[in-house]
Amino acid sequence: MWPLLLELWRKEPQVYPLRETFEVSIHTLGTSPEATTLAALGLGADEVYVLHTPESRRYLSQLQQDLGREVYPIEIDKSDVTRLYRAVGEQVRKHPGKKIALDLTSGTKAMSAGMAAAGYFLQRVHPSLRVAYVDNDAFDPALRKPVAGTEKLILLPNPHEVLGDLDEHLAQEFYGAREFSKAADRYQALRRKTGQGHFEVYAALCEMYQRWYALDFEGASSNAQRLLNFLTQDAYRNHPLNRHAQRLKEQKEGLKAIVALLQSKNFSEQKGILWLTATLLQLGDERRERQPVSAALYYYRAFELLLQHRLAVRGRSDDEPNLSPEEQQHLRQALSVWLGKPPEQIRPVQKLGLLESIALLCYLGDPALSRFSDSDLRGYQGMLQSRNKSLLIHGLEVSKKGDVERLQQFAHRLYQTTREEAGLAVSVEPVELV
Amino acid sequence: MWPLLLELWRKEPQVYPLRETFEVSIHTLGTSPEATTLAALGLGADEVYVLHTPESRRYLSQLQQDLGREVYPIEIDKSDVTRLYRAVGEQVRKHPGKKIALDLTSGTKAMSAGMAAAGYFLQRVHPSLRVAYVDNDAFDPALRKPVAGTEKLILLPNPHEVLGDLDEHLAQEFYGAREFSKAADRYQALRRKTGQGHFEVYAALCEMYQRWYALDFEGASSNAQRLLNFLTQDAYRNHPLNRHAQRLKEQKEGLKAIVALLQSKNFSEQKGILWLTATLLQLGDERRERQPVSAALYYYRAFELLLQHRLAVRGRSDDEPNLSPEEQQHLRQALSVWLGKPPEQIRPVQKLGLLESIALLCYLGDPALSRFSDSDLRGYQGMLQSRNKSLLIHGLEVSKKGDVERLQQFAHRLYQTTREEAGLAVSVEPVELV
Repeated sequence: MWPLLLELWRKEPQVYPLRETFEVSIHTLGTSPEATTLAALGLGADEVYVLHTPESRRYLSQLQQDLGREVYPIEIDKSDVTRLYRAVGEQVRKHPGKKIALDLTSGTKAMSAGMAAAGYFLQRVHPSLRVAYVDNDAFDPALRKPVAGTEKLILLPNPHEVLGDLDEHLAQEFYGAREFSKAADRYQALRRKTGQGHFEVYAALCEMYQRWYALDFEGASSNAQRLLNFLTQDAYRNHPLNRHAQRLKEQKEGLKAIVALLQSKNFSEQKGILWLTATLLQLGDERRERQPVSAALYYYRAFELLLQHRLAVRGRSDDEPNLSPEEQQHLRQALSVWLGKPPEQIRPVQKLGLLESIALLCYLGDPALSRFSDSDLRGYQGMLQSRNKSLLIHGLEVSKKGDVERLQQFAHRLYQTTREEAGLAVSVEPVELV
Repeated sequence: MWPLLLELWRKEPQVYPLRETFEVSIHTLGTSPEATTLAALGLGADEVYVLHTPESRRYLSQLQQDLGREVYPIEIDKSDVTRLYRAVGEQVRKHPGKKIALDLTSGTKAMSAGMAAAGYFLQRVHPSLRVAYVDNDAFDPALRKPVAGTEKLILLPNPHEVLGDLDEHLAQEFYGAREFSKAADRYQALRRKTGQGHFEVYAALCEMYQRWYALDFEGASSNAQRLLNFLTQDAYRNHPLNRHAQRLKEQKEGLKAIVALLQSKNFSEQKGILWLTATLLQLGDERRERQPVSAALYYYRAFELLLQHRLAVRGRSDDEPNLSPEEQQHLRQALSVWLGKPPEQIRPVQKLGLLESIALLCYLGDPALSRFSDSDLRGYQGMLQSRNKSLLIHGLEVSKKGDVERLQQFAHRLYQTTREEAGLAVSVEPVELV
């Protein structure tokens, strides 16, 4: 039977779904060299590499004879998945840009397992790589051999690509790292690749947070609406994100409040101020450890925004404070104490910086700021005064970790008080994906 | 022979390297039910799932009889890798927190391939999962069967974990996304996991860029030194990063110049200013598309830094300009033209903002700024004046894309001129990993 079959495959190999031509083929070789011969004929590569075991080495000459060409042998151990996996990776890397097929028909199951794992993974970097095996439509259980003549070479699909699990894993990693735009790109690619709509819902979520944390509140707000539209569709009732539907709805409302604030420019709008401040604090918290200079910037702005708000609800503004003579006198007095300078060295106050805003709010009896003692403020003044000297503002100072922590505490305390006064729940944390 | 073997495995299964107890086992079933029986006995799970084909369905009863327990059958097609892969994934997800083993001994090579690919990937999310198969020390090629009595169940290592390729892929993705700190974490984990030192060299590179782009120049500078120490060690002569050794050395020098500038606070230090400005422009460029508000902040600061430098080399400062009466008059005149306001509405200049700095530099005959016409500056003035109104500075304005682009162009042009005057090569782009 074998000579006839060989003759047939030499002329016209049976390949499913369609014959493709490869430049390099790599095969495992066990105790059925015939299957490997058929695979090599079906793949038709010029360069043939054979991973054989000490036991199967004796089949190499028959294989070369049947194929009518030399093959390059690589000896491995029949149970050493890792060694085989590494050998396959090395050969693939040695042939950049070439069309390569891996055939896992012959050899032990451990060899096939290593070959499959290597092939399916390497396909990410070498998209033209294929994993193949010789299947048969009928198997004779008594002879424990395929019924001759029913063999065909199958180019196997890559389940990672079909189901997208590896890309989804990457998307989740990016999401966890707050790289929302990269996560969104992955989910969009997954939707195209797998045709599955539920990935688009995840993409909408990522795009919402991407814009939100990039301070594009209008964009984020329309993404939030799009996301909630998805989640109320019948098709997505069981989408995992629906567990967070309530929270997502609150976040959509929060974003709307920020958009309204940025349009009205009215610092007394409580809800918008709270959601915007919470956003800036969140951005600061995420950067505190590894990017203290950026973190300080967000904390300063959050803190200032709260002061601007507390001034605005009292009918005042840091930009045009219109100070009465008594207020002017009080401010210079307070600054003199906090800065430890004689009053005559304190220049008349024009616009209100952070420290001047605090002084005016104390004078106006703001309970949140009156809580801080003169000695607290003597401790904070250096950090509050140094904002303009920061590398990202006008100077060359790099914020120190200790300063950033003090600033974070001060800003968070003022935020908590303002939020409690308002009795509002604000939750800007991204929801969990799973 | 089989009854004896079965009896032996019921009492004492042969497992390599050590026997472990599993709660769930999932098996492929082909035409050798005996191997599956041995695997199930060796794994000792209470719940046994069997992925069989229409052809191998008839072996289920023998399997149950030999095992002495019921198994749960799942029918698949012998060549459908994807269907099998999906079925395995579903079963694994249905048993969260349980110790699961996948046995790929029986069935076609396509089935084993799907099982291996699924198992090795799922292990990332379920670290206690194991892939197993029944190996034999001797195979009878005539009978095409293992020599009875030499079988052992092998718990296969996961080559992704042994070689770390999947983690390396993730690290590279993070690096490409400029998530240097996540990339560094991965490389450190890879070094621990695989014991391979070359991953630590990559980690040092990532840590350098992480600190650099977080504006921690001192930290980055010491990381750069550490990286170059690695690359000159004999052990790492052939490390792929050594192709970038020259560029990395220049970057180390650039970082040193920035550190010196931040210490001296002397804005006339050309090299430090150029490297620092290039860093800020790079940060801006990376954020321009998706985070225009942050991008604007970096561009503003880069632009201002160049003005501060050009003033400093002319012995002047934006903070204490000490304007002569002629200069004061010229500045108010220029501002009146650029802002389109009558001169009497222009207040006397105290400190120099962006526009005032440009006006003074023009008056002092700075060639880089004299190139811009009054009409250019009338076009730029709105954007230059609005810095303080930005959401991240003192106001509630979100930078528009068009403004950010104008700002980027202006800043890049001024940077190029300054760099050409200095005749310095500056390259802040992270090197390629591969």
